[in-house]
Amino acid sequence: MGDVAEPVSRLIDQFKKLPGIGAKSAQRLAFFVLKMDSADAGQIAEAILEVKRSIRCCSICNNLTDVDPCQYCSLPSRSDKSLCIVEESNNILAVERTHAFNGRYHVLMGSLSPLKGITPDQLTMTSLLRRLESGIVEEVIVATNPNVEGETTALYLSRLIKPMGIRVTRLGLGLPVGGDLEYADEVTMTKALEGRREL
Amino acid sequence: MGDVAEPVSRLIDQFKKLPGIGAKSAQRLAFFVLKMDSADAGQIAEAILEVKRSIRCCSICNNLTDVDPCQYCSLPSRSDKSLCIVEESNNILAVERTHAFNGRYHVLMGSLSPLKGITPDQLTMTSLLRRLESGIVEEVIVATNPNVEGETTALYLSRLIKPMGIRVTRLGLGLPVGGDLEYADEVTMTKALEGRREL
Repeated sequence: MGDVAEPVSRLIDQFKKLPGIGAKSAQRLAFFVLKMDSADAGQIAEAILEVKRSIRCCSICNNLTDVDPCQYCSLPSRSDKSLCIVEESNNILAVERTHAFNGRYHVLMGSLSPLKGITPDQLTMTSLLRRLESGIVEEVIVATNPNVEGETTALYLSRLIKPMGIRVTRLGLGLPVGGDLEYADEVTMTKALEGRREL
Repeated sequence: MGDVAEPVSRLIDQFKKLPGIGAKSAQRLAFFVLKMDSADAGQIAEAILEVKRSIRCCSICNNLTDVDPCQYCSLPSRSDKSLCIVEESNNILAVERTHAFNGRYHVLMGSLSPLKGITPDQLTMTSLLRRLESGIVEEVIVATNPNVEGETTALYLSRLIKPMGIRVTRLGLGLPVGGDLEYADEVTMTKALEGRREL
C-alpha cells in the first residue's frame, strides 16, 4: 500500500486487524471514512474508546457489561435454577434472541483446545464450580459452539458437574456442525434449546 | 439490540454505518474490539481521527492526500501528456496496481447521474478543463466505472474534450459491466488499459 498517503495506509492496516476484513475491505472502509463528515468519523472513534473505557467483565458470570453485576445476573425475574454456559459474552445474545431461556449465564471466556494449548485453568471453571456449589442450580445447559473445541468443553463440563448431582444438558440438533453459534438464526437456536440432550 | 450494554450497542450502531457491514458483522466487530487490548483499540480510534485531521484534496487533481500537491501530481518522472480521469480517489489505486500507466490523474469526485441529480457542475469539471486548456495533455483516458453513471460521464467528457483536439479514450473490454472499478483485479485492469477504445 505504498501508493496511498501514510495516514490512510495506517488506517487500512488498523481495519485489517478486524475479523473478516481483508485488504480490499479495509481499503474500502478507509476511503469511506475519508469521505465521511469529520463529526461522524469522530463518533466511530469515540465509540471505540468509550466501549474500552466503560465495559468490564461481570464479577459473577464474566459477561461483558457496563454495570456489575450484569443485567442477566441482577434481574430478579430470571430463574437461578438453570445456568447456561457459553464460550463468549456475545453467545449470550444468540440464546437471548430465542426468548426460550430465562435462567442465568456463565461465560467460560473460551473453550478447551489441546491444539491451541487452552486448558481448563485458562477458562473460568473455578468461579463456575463455586457458583454450582451453592446447590441452587438444578440444570446446566452447555451452549458451547458445535465444533471440536466446544464439544470437548461440553464433555469435560459434564464429567465435572454430573457427580455434583446436577443435570447437564447440551444444545440439541439444529445447529450445523462445524459452524459458529454467533451465526445461528433464532429458529435454529430455539430448536436447539428444545432438543437439548443429556450428556 | 436492547440486550447489550449501551456503549456496546452504540459501537455496533457506529460500525453499521460503514459500507458492507450489516447488523451481524457490526456485532462481531464490536465484540472483537471488546476483547482487544485497550492500546490496540486506541490505535484504531486514533487512526480514524488522524486520517480526518491530515487528509485533504490535492489542489491539482482532487486526490485525497496528506501533502499538496499529491504524489502523482508532484512526481517529475510521470508524463504530463496523458491524463487519467477517475470518479473517486481510491480508483487511482486500481489503475496504479497495473503499473501500466505513468501519466497524471484527475479525480471527478463522483459521476454524472440524472437519477441522483448529479450534474456536471457538482463534479470537478471546471478544474479539469482548466488543466486541459494548457495544451500539454495529448490523451485523456476516461477510467470511470463500467456502469450507467460511469458511461454517461465518459460520453459527456468525450463530447467536451474532443473538440479541444485532445484524444479521448475509455477503458477497454475486460471490466465486467455493472461492476465497480474498486474490485477489478490487476490482470483485468491491465487488459482494460491495453484495450482502451476511441470515444
